[in-house]
Amino acid sequence: MGNKGNLVVGQSGGPTAVINSSLVGVIHEAMQHDAIGAIYGMVHGVSGVLHEEFIDLRQESAETLERLRYTPASALGTVRYKLHSADYDRLLDVLMAYDVRYFLYIGGNDSMDTAHKVHLAAQAKGYELYALGVPKTVDNDLAYTDHCPGYGSAARFVATAVRDTGYDTEAMGESSPVKFIEVMGRNAGWLTAAAALARVEPNDPPQLLYVPECGVSLEQVVNDVRYWYETIGHCVVAVSEGMRNEQGEEIGSGFGQVELDAFGHARKGGVVETLEAIVKAELGVRVRHDKPGYLQRSCAALASPVDRAEAYLVGQAAVREALAGVSDRMITLERQPGPTYAVTTGLAPLAEVANAEHLLPREYINAAGNGVTEAFLEYARPLIGEPLAPYARLAKHAVPKRLAE
Amino acid sequence: MGNKGNLVVGQSGGPTAVINSSLVGVIHEAMQHDAIGAIYGMVHGVSGVLHEEFIDLRQESAETLERLRYTPASALGTVRYKLHSADYDRLLDVLMAYDVRYFLYIGGNDSMDTAHKVHLAAQAKGYELYALGVPKTVDNDLAYTDHCPGYGSAARFVATAVRDTGYDTEAMGESSPVKFIEVMGRNAGWLTAAAALARVEPNDPPQLLYVPECGVSLEQVVNDVRYWYETIGHCVVAVSEGMRNEQGEEIGSGFGQVELDAFGHARKGGVVETLEAIVKAELGVRVRHDKPGYLQRSCAALASPVDRAEAYLVGQAAVREALAGVSDRMITLERQPGPTYAVTTGLAPLAEVANAEHLLPREYINAAGNGVTEAFLEYARPLIGEPLAPYARLAKHAVPKRLAE
Repeated sequence: MGNKGNLVVGQSGGPTAVINSSLVGVIHEAMQHDAIGAIYGMVHGVSGVLHEEFIDLRQESAETLERLRYTPASALGTVRYKLHSADYDRLLDVLMAYDVRYFLYIGGNDSMDTAHKVHLAAQAKGYELYALGVPKTVDNDLAYTDHCPGYGSAARFVATAVRDTGYDTEAMGESSPVKFIEVMGRNAGWLTAAAALARVEPNDPPQLLYVPECGVSLEQVVNDVRYWYETIGHCVVAVSEGMRNEQGEEIGSGFGQVELDAFGHARKGGVVETLEAIVKAELGVRVRHDKPGYLQRSCAALASPVDRAEAYLVGQAAVREALAGVSDRMITLERQPGPTYAVTTGLAPLAEVANAEHLLPREYINAAGNGVTEAFLEYARPLIGEPLAPYARLAKHAVPKRLAE
Repeated sequence: MGNKGNLVVGQSGGPTAVINSSLVGVIHEAMQHDAIGAIYGMVHGVSGVLHEEFIDLRQESAETLERLRYTPASALGTVRYKLHSADYDRLLDVLMAYDVRYFLYIGGNDSMDTAHKVHLAAQAKGYELYALGVPKTVDNDLAYTDHCPGYGSAARFVATAVRDTGYDTEAMGESSPVKFIEVMGRNAGWLTAAAALARVEPNDPPQLLYVPECGVSLEQVVNDVRYWYETIGHCVVAVSEGMRNEQGEEIGSGFGQVELDAFGHARKGGVVETLEAIVKAELGVRVRHDKPGYLQRSCAALASPVDRAEAYLVGQAAVREALAGVSDRMITLERQPGPTYAVTTGLAPLAEVANAEHLLPREYINAAGNGVTEAFLEYARPLIGEPLAPYARLAKHAVPKRLAE
């Protein structure tokens, strides 16, 4: 049991559909332990610590907390401020002034780095502090954990969106037979790979997907799309915003945004706009694209219940570990062996998580670099919760023709 | 009761999340009547008639039809082919060869025009045919009907998406405080207006919305965004793809797509890219955008149950009216007076529907042209089904500061 003291929790980096579930896991768990005094929330992450902007989470109603588990985005406010080394002195001064003994930070790599440095700064001052990281990222690129809370929900959204826009494309037929859908992921293709979870029959969308880990030539993209167009009459392609060519160069701006100046001139094309223009020119058909953007990480209505529950779990675990005297660690999810999907929580050193980036391994990508393997599907399937609701296609029994044309 | 004969049904124009529900309504109803022989589906609308591509819908399983009610896009395939006057002779030859006496066409304005001309062509040949239109459009721009099947579901998607991306923007705070979301609608602002259904508290997203019916100057947009940014720290704006300036000129390409050539140069900027660049330059803050594109019309998971049921209802009604000897009419939805939302079906002349475009009336748009009125909200609220699931915001009781900075 840790010393009696106050707890502070913050959210950092891009929001997700379930990061508030982790926050509520922290609060609910903290409320169960007498060793914890005040439960403070950082307003906009470490920026809130630096500016002494804390809120008293014990004063939130039970109803608010319950609803918050189903509310997307970061209820405390998030931050992308990069701390300077001088900031850590100030951070420690503030934490000490508020008698904070438990520092829990929910976020991705950068947030783990921050939590690690807070731990080091406390150590250097001889101040007893338990600093823990709670994983969060739709990119699923944190190492030492089977997967990251936030990913399953974004994966479910992407699979849903690709299937829906895929059925739409199929219905349009010759009117606009090719569709690109841009998926989040500058370096990691986990989320784009999840589009494959939309597929039930072999010809289902997405017919193709491209991830940053496996660059392919634009020529291959054109040939891949042509193959599907000629075979089934249409083609739906999921593309990581950070997709690369065979030289490893990003095809688009990599940020999912076409930057235009005030006069409407493009500074640099995004990846789907570039691919759309090339395929249109080469195949001579109408090509369309979707850019669901921030909806991928914020659509609570399509969140994975499994993901939401795990997000809560890692929040709870962080409090328990801190009280048990653990510091400088991130909570991980460990998949249990056996036929039924189950996870337990574990621990990983913050510094090692901060310095690693867990990309999609080669064995999860097919040989051609335009799809995933069964091994990936087995990995990802349980994370999105129940399978997507079944759709129907007509059997289409043809009526014999009675006239010549 | 009409003469015994066959029925043919087709889907036309852009798919929706519930157009298959109308199709199933037609099939289920047709199966109840001995007066109807074969039930044919046109493959890709009138193109299927011209090429004698029919499928036998009586051979579809009950399970397929039941699932189809929950499957987005057009299961028969849709078409955007514009018929030439010579095509109508061929159409009639085919319909007569297949002993078709009931011609049901599910679609928007153009489809109603087609159904009307099929009716006239049959009359001119003295061929007994009952041609009816079944309304469908996410744009909600068909006249003579209270609203259009397809709209409620797209409206629910837009409200959901705007709220989710709005919470995300609020969480980001100063990191990227302004967000534009591009909504379908080249001429009609109904769908963009539906974004306002996301709002529960006065400061909720969307803080602003712009529709094609009410052009505003770019200067006003900048000032509107600045007001919200300065007042609450962020601003989320729903924008019709066909948004116009004060001279009535489209701000973007109006088609929701930035057209780039094979070298990545923009031919013309889309509306949100243009607004993003201008606001970024004028306010000096990071601006982001989402373009959910075709997901707006295809997201079955977020479809409105009310809309799905009404889509089925208009399909059923078309069969019953055809059997009752009605032709050259579109099925309409008539809202019943009274405290509880309820509709019945009615009829409108196809030619009048085909020649009209029902835009958002001025009394549904606020005086400033950047939001909607309570009258619009009352009109639209019942169409999306149950209210969106409640979200929570923290009450944020501030902790008194203990240090100076």
